[in-house]
Amino acid sequence: MPLQDAFSNFTQRDWEHEAVEGAIRLAVVGVGGFARQRALPAIADSTRCETTVLVASPPESVSDVAEAYAVDAVVDYDPFLEGACVDAYDAVYIAAPNAVHGQYAIAAAEFGKHVLCEKPLETTVERARAIVDACADAGVTLMTAYRLQAEPTVRRTRELVRDGVIGDVVQVHGGFSHPLLAEADPDTWRLDPETAGGGALVDLGIYPLNTIRFALECDPIGVYATTRSEGPPFANVDEHVAIQLEYETGATASCTASFDAHARSALELVGTDGMIDIESPFGGVVPQEMVVESGDVRMEYTGPRVDEVREEFDYFGYCVLTGTDPEPDGEDGLIDLYTIEAAYESAETGRRIALE
Amino acid sequence: MPLQDAFSNFTQRDWEHEAVEGAIRLAVVGVGGFARQRALPAIADSTRCETTVLVASPPESVSDVAEAYAVDAVVDYDPFLEGACVDAYDAVYIAAPNAVHGQYAIAAAEFGKHVLCEKPLETTVERARAIVDACADAGVTLMTAYRLQAEPTVRRTRELVRDGVIGDVVQVHGGFSHPLLAEADPDTWRLDPETAGGGALVDLGIYPLNTIRFALECDPIGVYATTRSEGPPFANVDEHVAIQLEYETGATASCTASFDAHARSALELVGTDGMIDIESPFGGVVPQEMVVESGDVRMEYTGPRVDEVREEFDYFGYCVLTGTDPEPDGEDGLIDLYTIEAAYESAETGRRIALE
Repeated sequence: MPLQDAFSNFTQRDWEHEAVEGAIRLAVVGVGGFARQRALPAIADSTRCETTVLVASPPESVSDVAEAYAVDAVVDYDPFLEGACVDAYDAVYIAAPNAVHGQYAIAAAEFGKHVLCEKPLETTVERARAIVDACADAGVTLMTAYRLQAEPTVRRTRELVRDGVIGDVVQVHGGFSHPLLAEADPDTWRLDPETAGGGALVDLGIYPLNTIRFALECDPIGVYATTRSEGPPFANVDEHVAIQLEYETGATASCTASFDAHARSALELVGTDGMIDIESPFGGVVPQEMVVESGDVRMEYTGPRVDEVREEFDYFGYCVLTGTDPEPDGEDGLIDLYTIEAAYESAETGRRIALE
Repeated sequence: MPLQDAFSNFTQRDWEHEAVEGAIRLAVVGVGGFARQRALPAIADSTRCETTVLVASPPESVSDVAEAYAVDAVVDYDPFLEGACVDAYDAVYIAAPNAVHGQYAIAAAEFGKHVLCEKPLETTVERARAIVDACADAGVTLMTAYRLQAEPTVRRTRELVRDGVIGDVVQVHGGFSHPLLAEADPDTWRLDPETAGGGALVDLGIYPLNTIRFALECDPIGVYATTRSEGPPFANVDEHVAIQLEYETGATASCTASFDAHARSALELVGTDGMIDIESPFGGVVPQEMVVESGDVRMEYTGPRVDEVREEFDYFGYCVLTGTDPEPDGEDGLIDLYTIEAAYESAETGRRIALE
């Protein structure tokens, strides 16, 4: 593929293979910062989803949100689990803390509802597997909310890699740091290992982990990791993490994440015949800036702004409406949890951990 | 330090503390690609060094170089070791293959000559230690030719880190890939482990290793590594390497090097309060482009072109003439060799190797 062709239709939804009409009705479970700032506005913009139910405790705590988005049904968590408003939604979007993903996802599946679940799918492989099994048993769609998979720079990167524009990928660097306490209180659930499943690796490092698997279209076979915490409030989780991965193809990835460093994200793939560098791919607002080198050609590209969260909800709605299995399915979420568990084992033991 | 002050005198030679006159006379030992393309022109431009002797075999093979730089004395390796032209030079610059660094450096030291030796200092810690000891015994100056330590973006980076402009450094990413066979034959000594001491890590990875130690002003305490070779002509060395380092301060560095990938180099330091990104720091011609973020301030800076190889020779000449101990001394060269040996042990054993 000539390099310029990759950018001739930068924002194309190459996942959209058939015409579809209508929208699915979502129950948004957990109305925290991300739901308020990104998800609910994106759903409002989406043509394939609409918010019809909010699940929060106490319900009054989200009356501003219910009013802003004209959502009539607002219920507490327990009534939701007991089937409240079950006819008012077709699917759930779970943005509650990681350790409760399972109970809401499984309840929804048992009601015959489709599930879009934030990453990580759950706090452990075992608990995530229960979600996957419940959705399979119920015959409902399960998607892990890896918003980057709907984001144009990442999708174009996969195409460029697939088409050999940079040759065989040899080495990848990915990093994502964000000062958690700039926005969250020190008692945030993200610093409780039981509720979060881990620290910076689980919350931030999962972005490069998943995005690299997506771009390379292969999975890691080995992992080394180093974790570090400098004490409270980070004492019980990895405040900083560095992780080195080996892939089936022989490529390696060098990834880092931090809860307590300057906000920064970066992704660079170096291949035998070129490289791709994406500016700030993982942070809140992706600037759609890429540099691609292929042989002697260098291209610096800035794409039009796209809200990848809206893209994600449109994609989920499309999958449900057409019966398409989403790419970021439950297995996709599971593989990253296997990697995360292996990474923590490596950090603990000082050994390379093999992944099956 | 306000951020802009870091760039008010970008090319300053902060190592130049006293006035000095004159130049030292160099015997250039080994006249290969780097000597021809970079070192000899840089020495010709230098005010503190001049080339008075060339050591090559056969001497006629460098008659074009001798003529171009008006060098009268050209000798073969064996006569050089026996003391030929010993009165015609004050110091040696050793650019021969790694495994012969020791014999020329030790011979020079025993003649009372100062030594500037290309990196790596030798092929093993033990052999490099012999160079350090010989120079100490002879009371001559020994400098490892880490040209980046004389390069403005790297020196300014160390100042910025030292002055706390990016807070405490948390995570570093460094990579250097170069397609060796684009310029070298498959039978190059760089692919012979006996002569080179290793592969991509020794030849290219040593740049991020040393530059990160210089910028952070601390040494690694642990290392993980993954090496890979895809067969001939890379069968006996690491064609690709990924290495993850832990430092005394708690910082980590994620480094990669490759002999067989698109030409690319990158260095990024993320701290608690900012980040520094240097464009192409390790490749042949450093573009002197830096991005620095400090709190909410972002600065993109392009400095004037500086030949860091000339800077390196001026610095070496200055050190010899003033009796200053060079920063990249023999111990500096040794520490990187300790790290490299530990990295190969990690790749072999699948374990984190502690460094003392």
